[in-house]
Amino acid sequence: MSDERPIGVFDSGVGGLTVFREVMRRVPDEKLIYFGDTARLPYGTKSRETIIGFARQIVRFLKTKDVKAIVVACNTASAYALDVIEAEEDIPFIGVVKPGAKVAAATTKNGRIGVIATSGTISSGMYGNYIHSIDPDLKVFGKECPLFVPLVEEGWLHDSVTREVASRYLNELKGEFIDTLILGCTHYPLIRRLIAEEMGEDVKLVNPAYETSMALRELLAERGLEASPREKPPKHEFYVSDAAERFLTFAKAVLSCDISSTGVVDIERY
Amino acid sequence: MSDERPIGVFDSGVGGLTVFREVMRRVPDEKLIYFGDTARLPYGTKSRETIIGFARQIVRFLKTKDVKAIVVACNTASAYALDVIEAEEDIPFIGVVKPGAKVAAATTKNGRIGVIATSGTISSGMYGNYIHSIDPDLKVFGKECPLFVPLVEEGWLHDSVTREVASRYLNELKGEFIDTLILGCTHYPLIRRLIAEEMGEDVKLVNPAYETSMALRELLAERGLEASPREKPPKHEFYVSDAAERFLTFAKAVLSCDISSTGVVDIERY
Repeated sequence: MSDERPIGVFDSGVGGLTVFREVMRRVPDEKLIYFGDTARLPYGTKSRETIIGFARQIVRFLKTKDVKAIVVACNTASAYALDVIEAEEDIPFIGVVKPGAKVAAATTKNGRIGVIATSGTISSGMYGNYIHSIDPDLKVFGKECPLFVPLVEEGWLHDSVTREVASRYLNELKGEFIDTLILGCTHYPLIRRLIAEEMGEDVKLVNPAYETSMALRELLAERGLEASPREKPPKHEFYVSDAAERFLTFAKAVLSCDISSTGVVDIERY
Repeated sequence: MSDERPIGVFDSGVGGLTVFREVMRRVPDEKLIYFGDTARLPYGTKSRETIIGFARQIVRFLKTKDVKAIVVACNTASAYALDVIEAEEDIPFIGVVKPGAKVAAATTKNGRIGVIATSGTISSGMYGNYIHSIDPDLKVFGKECPLFVPLVEEGWLHDSVTREVASRYLNELKGEFIDTLILGCTHYPLIRRLIAEEMGEDVKLVNPAYETSMALRELLAERGLEASPREKPPKHEFYVSDAAERFLTFAKAVLSCDISSTGVVDIERY
């Protein structure tokens, strides 16, 4: 039994490519359709209602590609919209928040977990909710880091300014004696080393992208949705809502596969 | 002869409130309708086609309020979309780019003008185009400063990180020996002092907001569109495309007038 339909992966823009990369590695026979909402990014400062509206349009678009499952690669969209769209649709969804929360709860030794993310993800409280549903005694400390995304997009990955910003943002969390820190935004793994140096070696960093790709692999196996083995890697498709060249530049830096072209979708029509 | 219809002012989000403030001061009898596209901000990294589409929707919304003129308070939208929407509509438009270019051309003594702005405004080349239409011998040097908007929105206005970022961005322009610098993004006047200190006292800063409000006053007088004098200040209206509380917080900091409430508009329907 196999299912050759593609899997949808969406994000507010380019950050979800760090999740896409993990998914490619974990389920190499699956054809993937990526959608980045570059016309409306960022999601992290916008309201729940707006994000749910955006997610619904993207799901409608991905369903025109006959996807068998959808990965919500954006933390803010996972936090705000996953429950709502999951209830409305008949295909399975995987968000990044639940797998990230699960591995953080399994990692902590002292029961103190930090979460760094966008304002939207932090104020949704979803990481805390999932972690507490696993173990109500765990303590969760959230900190929004709004400058990290623009700094990563500026390419200042190993930079004194980024280090100073990280030092200010993370100082509060250091005072809480956390031993585990969730990188709750898809851009943050790109400054992982700098965050690790700032937090010190006693704090374990959790990148939800890896755990999300593992959860996807399990889900496909459980439901008999796996594609059959291929000789050549599948040709993935990439779509964005704005023809920003920066998408291709960023994508080539994050992924090693060839993405020669990107389709532009008028997402507001969906 | 007077015309009591309101004037529309729009921007990608909150930045245009610095223009709104100048307009309020210069034409105090005019009722103003502000629209901030908080669901889709920022505009500065998005393509010309996308910005024109957004601007058309906003103009359609503002026309439902029976506006007699529209101020495009966003530099990126002025640079990319003003010519297009002006040609499609029958009411007058004023953007921030042309007035800013005019005053810069009149200010420079050595013929070397700098422009700092978003990626979109810089790559549109519109400041250069307008300046060269006034005097083709003037030299224009553009520099995009993508971190300024997030730093201003983080509230780090007088801050060592913002100073370091400004120093890096502006260093290139200092090497061009400009004597005039256009603050080509509505957020930048809020870090005007820091930019002035960085550039030194021989460089004059041009804030297009002031000149835009003067141009609006002239236009209303010329076309007989002025409202009659009022005893009390008019009650302005504020609309946004996303119910972000941060709009009200920011607006209260920038404006001194009372804006107790903000309407939320589903702009994609227009």
